[in-house]
Amino acid sequence: MELVLKLVEQKKTFDGALEVFDHESESCQCTMRFAVYTPPQAKTAKVPVLWYLSGLTCNWSNVMEKSGIMRLAAEFGFMVIAPDTSPRGEQVANDDAYDLGQGAGFYINATEAPWAEHFQMETYIMEELPALIAKEFLNADMDKQGIMGHSMGGHGALSLHLKYPGRFKSVSAFSPIVAPSQVPWGEKAFSTYIGDDRAAWKAHDACALMSSSSDVPILIDQGTADNFLDEQLRTHLFAEACEAVGQKAEINMREGYDHSYYFIATFLPNHFDWHAKALNA
Amino acid sequence: MELVLKLVEQKKTFDGALEVFDHESESCQCTMRFAVYTPPQAKTAKVPVLWYLSGLTCNWSNVMEKSGIMRLAAEFGFMVIAPDTSPRGEQVANDDAYDLGQGAGFYINATEAPWAEHFQMETYIMEELPALIAKEFLNADMDKQGIMGHSMGGHGALSLHLKYPGRFKSVSAFSPIVAPSQVPWGEKAFSTYIGDDRAAWKAHDACALMSSSSDVPILIDQGTADNFLDEQLRTHLFAEACEAVGQKAEINMREGYDHSYYFIATFLPNHFDWHAKALNA
Repeated sequence: MELVLKLVEQKKTFDGALEVFDHESESCQCTMRFAVYTPPQAKTAKVPVLWYLSGLTCNWSNVMEKSGIMRLAAEFGFMVIAPDTSPRGEQVANDDAYDLGQGAGFYINATEAPWAEHFQMETYIMEELPALIAKEFLNADMDKQGIMGHSMGGHGALSLHLKYPGRFKSVSAFSPIVAPSQVPWGEKAFSTYIGDDRAAWKAHDACALMSSSSDVPILIDQGTADNFLDEQLRTHLFAEACEAVGQKAEINMREGYDHSYYFIATFLPNHFDWHAKALNA
Repeated sequence: MELVLKLVEQKKTFDGALEVFDHESESCQCTMRFAVYTPPQAKTAKVPVLWYLSGLTCNWSNVMEKSGIMRLAAEFGFMVIAPDTSPRGEQVANDDAYDLGQGAGFYINATEAPWAEHFQMETYIMEELPALIAKEFLNADMDKQGIMGHSMGGHGALSLHLKYPGRFKSVSAFSPIVAPSQVPWGEKAFSTYIGDDRAAWKAHDACALMSSSSDVPILIDQGTADNFLDEQLRTHLFAEACEAVGQKAEINMREGYDHSYYFIATFLPNHFDWHAKALNA
C-alpha cells in the first residue's frame, strides 16, 4: 500500500494532536506540506473542519505556534487545517521578492510560464487537499467546513468562499487583501501568474466577486495601526462592496493593532465564536 | 536625562502592550535585552509581577510568541517579565555547544575565566533587573512577585526561590532541571562557570537547597514523553526532596507531552491559577 501522507512532526497539545505532513501533490506537481490539528473531541465523534489560509511568506507554523488556534480548536472541537502558502522546492519557480513566487501563491491557479507548472493553489486548496483530508481523517466532518485567513490568506478565504458558494458554512478574515485587482500586491501577483487581462482577475477578487448577497455573513478584523492598510488592504472597499449588494458583514477596525500575529491572537477567540455559530448549528 | 531603556519593539496585544527593551547592564557588563508584557489593568492600578525564566537557547520571544502567556496575563492582570537566558554579544564569551555560553547562563554568577566578566545572571535577575522594573514601571507591584520557568529556567525559578526565601510569593516550573549537580547539563555548566568544587554547586541546586519546608507551595508540570526526562530532568529527585522535608508541592506528570512550548501552552492556564492564589490574595 502506498503511503500517501508522510508524517513530519507530531506533538500532543491541548489533549489533541498537531501533525505535520508531506505529500506528493498532483495539482502542484511537487511535495506539499500542511498541518492538521485534531482536537480531543475527534477521538469519539466527527468534528467540523476549519481551514486557515496564511499570509505572504508564512507556512503552517506561524498560525499553529503564534495564534493560540489550537487552544481554541480544542475548546470548540474543530479540526484545523493549515496548508502552505505556495508550492516550494528547488524545482519550483521563485522570485527574490517576498511577495512573489514561493510563499506567495495567492490561492489561484497560474496560467503563465514558468508559474503554471506548480502554482495551482486554487485546485490544491479546493479539490486535492479536501479530498485527502476526507480520505485520511475519518472524523473530519466535510459537511461542516469553515474558512479563515490572514492578509493574502484573508484574500484566499474571502475570494474562495465567494467563488464557491455553499462550500464553506462560515468565513472570516484578519487583515485581508480585499481587492487584489486594485492594489500593488495583487496587481503584481495576478499579472505575473495569470497575465495582463484584468477581466480574468475578477474571478479572484473578493470585492469584484461580491455580485449578490449570500446567507453566510462575513467577519473581518483589521488593525488601524497596520502598515499595509492604506496601500494594500483598503478594508473600506469591501465594506462598500457588501453595502452595495446587501451582504451581511461585521467589519471591526481595531484601534492600535498592527498586521502581526499579536493582533490575530487577540481577536481569534471572537472568530471561533463566529464560526461556531454556523459550524455547531 | 539618560535614557536607561531603549525600546526595541512595541506591540499592542490583548489590550495591553508587549515591549522589548535593550539596556546597559552593570552586572553583566553588556547590553541585555528583555521583554515586558503590561496588562490592561496596569493602566489604572498596580499589578503583580510574574517572572518567566526561559530554557537553553531561548530568549524573550519564545514564551511571548508561543505559550499564550500574554492572553493569560491580560486575563489575570499580571505583568510578565521575560529576561534573556544569558549575556550576549561579540565581546561575550561563548561556546559552540547549545548548552554552554550564550543562551545558557543557568541563572548563576560565574567565577571562572573567561565567563566571570559577563555571566552574572543571578545578580542580574535578583537585583539589577528588579530594581530597573521597579523604577521604570510604576504600576509593577514589587511586593507581589511570582516566578516560573522552563527547563533551565525551571531550575532558575526553583533554585532562586529557594535561595531567596520570601522574595517570590509563588513559584512554578515546567520541565525543570531540579538537580543540576547530578545531571550532565548542570555538571557541565557548573564546572565551567563556577569550578569543580561540588560543595559550591549546592547553592544553585533546587534539590540540595530544599533543607526545610516553606509556606510557599511549589507547582511542577512535566511531560512523560519529554526526551530529557530520564537523563537531565529527573523530576522524581525533587519529589523525594520535598517529601523529605515536608514541602508542599504539586508535581504533575503529563502523559504523552514532550519538552516543547506545545506542552507549556497546554498547561500554562493551570500555572496562572496557581500563581493567582498567592499574588491576588
